Amino acid sequence: MSSAAVEKQLAAFNALKTDLFHKDFLLTWEHSTDEIKAVLTLAEALKLLHQEGLSCRAFDSGLAISIFRDNSTRTRFSFAAAASALGFTLSDLDEEKSQIAHGETVRETANMISFLAEVIGIRDDMFLGEGNKYMREVGDALTEGKQQGVLHRRPSIVNLQCDIDHPTQSLADLAWLKKHFGGIENMRGKKLAMTWAYSPSYGKPLSVPQGVIGLMTRFGMEVSLAHPEGYGLIPEVIEVARKNATQSGGKFEVVNSMEQAFQGAHIVYPKSWAPYHVMQRRTELLKTSDKDGLKALEKECLANNARFSNWECDRAKMNLTHDRSALYMHCLPADITDVSCKAGEVSAEVFEQYRIPTYHEASYKPFVISALMFLTRLRDPGAKLEQIIRRAKGLSI
Amino acid sequence: MSSAAVEKQLAAFNALKTDLFHKDFLLTWEHSTDEIKAVLTLAEALKLLHQEGLSCRAFDSGLAISIFRDNSTRTRFSFAAAASALGFTLSDLDEEKSQIAHGETVRETANMISFLAEVIGIRDDMFLGEGNKYMREVGDALTEGKQQGVLHRRPSIVNLQCDIDHPTQSLADLAWLKKHFGGIENMRGKKLAMTWAYSPSYGKPLSVPQGVIGLMTRFGMEVSLAHPEGYGLIPEVIEVARKNATQSGGKFEVVNSMEQAFQGAHIVYPKSWAPYHVMQRRTELLKTSDKDGLKALEKECLANNARFSNWECDRAKMNLTHDRSALYMHCLPADITDVSCKAGEVSAEVFEQYRIPTYHEASYKPFVISALMFLTRLRDPGAKLEQIIRRAKGLSI
Amino acid sequence: MSSAAVEKQLAAFNALKTDLFHKDFLLTWEHSTDEIKAVLTLAEALKLLHQEGLSCRAFDSGLAISIFRDNSTRTRFSFAAAASALGFTLSDLDEEKSQIAHGETVRETANMISFLAEVIGIRDDMFLGEGNKYMREVGDALTEGKQQGVLHRRPSIVNLQCDIDHPTQSLADLAWLKKHFGGIENMRGKKLAMTWAYSPSYGKPLSVPQGVIGLMTRFGMEVSLAHPEGYGLIPEVIEVARKNATQSGGKFEVVNSMEQAFQGAHIVYPKSWAPYHVMQRRTELLKTSDKDGLKALEKECLANNARFSNWECDRAKMNLTHDRSALYMHCLPADITDVSCKAGEVSAEVFEQYRIPTYHEASYKPFVISALMFLTRLRDPGAKLEQIIRRAKGLSI
Repeated sequence: MSSAAVEKQLAAFNALKTDLFHKDFLLTWEHSTDEIKAVLTLAEALKLLHQEGLSCRAFDSGLAISIFRDNSTRTRFSFAAAASALGFTLSDLDEEKSQIAHGETVRETANMISFLAEVIGIRDDMFLGEGNKYMREVGDALTEGKQQGVLHRRPSIVNLQCDIDHPTQSLADLAWLKKHFGGIENMRGKKLAMTWAYSPSYGKPLSVPQGVIGLMTRFGMEVSLAHPEGYGLIPEVIEVARKNATQSGGKFEVVNSMEQAFQGAHIVYPKSWAPYHVMQRRTELLKTSDKDGLKALEKECLANNARFSNWECDRAKMNLTHDRSALYMHCLPADITDVSCKAGEVSAEVFEQYRIPTYHEASYKPFVISALMFLTRLRDPGAKLEQIIRRAKGLSI
Repeated sequence: MSSAAVEKQLAAFNALKTDLFHKDFLLTWEHSTDEIKAVLTLAEALKLLHQEGLSCRAFDSGLAISIFRDNSTRTRFSFAAAASALGFTLSDLDEEKSQIAHGETVRETANMISFLAEVIGIRDDMFLGEGNKYMREVGDALTEGKQQGVLHRRPSIVNLQCDIDHPTQSLADLAWLKKHFGGIENMRGKKLAMTWAYSPSYGKPLSVPQGVIGLMTRFGMEVSLAHPEGYGLIPEVIEVARKNATQSGGKFEVVNSMEQAFQGAHIVYPKSWAPYHVMQRRTELLKTSDKDGLKALEKECLANNARFSNWECDRAKMNLTHDRSALYMHCLPADITDVSCKAGEVSAEVFEQYRIPTYHEASYKPFVISALMFLTRLRDPGAKLEQIIRRAKGLSI
Repeated sequence: MSSAAVEKQLAAFNALKTDLFHKDFLLTWEHSTDEIKAVLTLAEALKLLHQEGLSCRAFDSGLAISIFRDNSTRTRFSFAAAASALGFTLSDLDEEKSQIAHGETVRETANMISFLAEVIGIRDDMFLGEGNKYMREVGDALTEGKQQGVLHRRPSIVNLQCDIDHPTQSLADLAWLKKHFGGIENMRGKKLAMTWAYSPSYGKPLSVPQGVIGLMTRFGMEVSLAHPEGYGLIPEVIEVARKNATQSGGKFEVVNSMEQAFQGAHIVYPKSWAPYHVMQRRTELLKTSDKDGLKALEKECLANNARFSNWECDRAKMNLTHDRSALYMHCLPADITDVSCKAGEVSAEVFEQYRIPTYHEASYKPFVISALMFLTRLRDPGAKLEQIIRRAKGLSI
């Protein structure tokens, strides 16, 4: 094994202080910078081991449960792959096939599925004000279950996208940026344009842009958030981003022009989302199953979106960026003009140029999730990583 | 490891005589008292190992197949957890995604899924006279497959609830009682009230009360079955309970008053079910897909149920029990008045008082299922348990 | 262990030259005769190990992904069992629960699911001209992903049935024939009747008969393909069969009479399929979602099928075969007259006589799939097999 690279990650990891054992991971800004760096470092170490064909197995058994309240391909497979790589068995809670409809409480279900669970990954991003709250409700139930001796161990919840944050996405994004720019310290002073982009659909969650501005502002970057008027994000997350930028010596601004955000940017992240207040109205309509209201809202929103169809990431706008060659990012799948729709977030030419880099970006997600499992389920993750490396080198452990 | 506790279970296990290797587990009363005790003892041993964070892994590979013909949360996760803990891979037969609709026989399907199977867990509790029969049909097919050399080994069927019994539930219940009362020998003379309770739904299976009276009568308990007139259980199971009580020196009575059953009880198990003859009529209507007939039956039954809405486990009735503090049990989810319905099986106050104990009760199910897998798939389960304990203690195996 | 048998397979395997490492397995006729023999030999070795209760585990972790675009029972379980036996974790891509509907490209999805994947099994047999093409599209995407460094390793695709071939079926069929006749060399000169048979359904894929004539003609067999006029197979596959027969010193003929094909046959394989040109029209109608057109086509086809309801494998036709006792084969489930339908592919009497042999035939599929995984994912499969055998014998590895 080319063990130098992985041992470098081990050394970097051992210099960091983390306190994630048996904790949850719900919002990146609830965790220290050391913990964020530990996730990135560990993800990189596990990726290197996998690249060499070496086993990352750290557990003999245990359930990793997934609860997907919305569709998913890459996060679903990333979670499955992460569980498998570490030795956990995946068990998906399909709420339609369960007895949950019978009026069972979250408190009860959370305990019932967790007797042998180690990790619970949850995606719940449909309703503003609901997803993150649901995760905390599950968490409280697990804490009570552990306190009462019902659960031998308290499983850790990993947020696989909620209404507020999408931490496994933003951490994978950051891991990719760290790799691309040769180190987290090189992010300082880099301008990132997190901008709204046109899409012929509506109702996309806010969690990706919120996750990005909430995380990237911590590392001295200049984050420019751009969107048409009326497409604002949750105010609390804007505050988080502002505070982060101040503390890290970076910058954070909100502008109403894609061009302005792209100006001199080193990184662009053009991505559609629904306006905050639309998501609020939509949540109310969904709660009351008001189909006519939902149709009317969709029509109104698509008409409003259409006013901003020029918010497309095309060659002309890319030419405004630093050296005319900013790194394009996307959480995928993107709405690509003339490929997946008539007019979308990005021109076919720009997307094709950066297609492979977006795949690299995505490739970090399973390892980020592995790292989160590793950090939350091991009392001494550094010792276990060292053990895995020794095993890989054929040394006695 | 606090190894004394688990070694005590090992010693207790080794004193019991079992003959379950490559057999099925369909009805508790088909198995000897030693075998029942072996399940409880082994479940406790595996639970202790898990509590200490020690591996229970007993197999290197092999499929544990689940067939759920009705919804399930806790049994589904218990089966998945049990398989994972022992080293089996779970594979769910989703009959909708299979070719079974093409008119394939049970005999054929049973063999086709079983070439590498070790255990098949089946839930089939919807139709009276059907579920247990189906399990035996699968079992006969497996026996033939083994005899003909089609199958290298005959997988064991574990009944995850049928129309007659729900053994993994009643065994988990008994394991919890054993723990709560400090030993199976302490069950002698304890009064258990297995009573019908009001629910705003209809058509709930009879297997839980049948499982409970069929099992608890074997250990010298005084089992009082209470239900409104017309809500009787399958006569054959009543006979089993009577015979068990006689043989074990316990008691078994059927009364028509919740209060009477609760009088002086050490344990109460209030739980709704549909009358036997209603389930028979429902089965006929379901077979002929008679939707109007089903609606009419539901209406008639709900109206009949409503006559017994005072069959609720409330504080006043709890005050009739031994020291006014009987242990409340439920297989969950319960219909809780003012929580999951307007009027249900149990008052919110009583349920909340016993909520955590019911979670403890449920926590035994994955370990009971593990124990059944262990006993049916290992020629010498005692030796394997000893090996696992030695491995856990870091001794050479 | 009765290790002589498995060591014989090891020796046979080591005499064969294979080049399947990190390759796909899509059509049997794209692979050398040595590679076909290697699959059979390895499948037999793994089956012997399983029969003895010995572990076939060859991998510590890794995902085996299945994509089923059509229903499946036995192939689904065979794939799951094969993955489990070797140590892979199964992950099913349920396209309905994914974001694929959002207009995502095959190229993108293929990479997104594959970061930790080792094998991807695909069933896509509904549309003529589509299934195999789709597999190659996935394969091209994986090749690009590996070249671009997105994927650490290129997963191997295993064809679990397409519009052209059903290699895991035909290889299981051949493994069973090899066993039944005591060696692959004994296939020489044996007559196999691959014939169309009547079924009250329409639209069955052509891949089974195509797979059989494309494979069995390679081993000196006399393959007689029989079908009513108008029920022809894909012309390219007919060409493959002709060429194979010439090269192997066997025979290949196409006749329009079940009786003629059965005459003197050592093996009969009566199986319904839809005519090639009907499948082409059906594919067009399905693409345009032309429901009326599909109904009309079905009606027309069933009427046409009905003209050939005497194409049933019954006692009289079996009496035409070699010694009146040809081996009956079927991929299952069969349309059995008076069992699964009023009139079908085979009489109840003939099917019942050969029921167990068809189960034996099916029993080879999980081991054939294991062998394909083994051959495509290990650089030196012979060394690994030897290691597994040594481990099984308790020798140091």
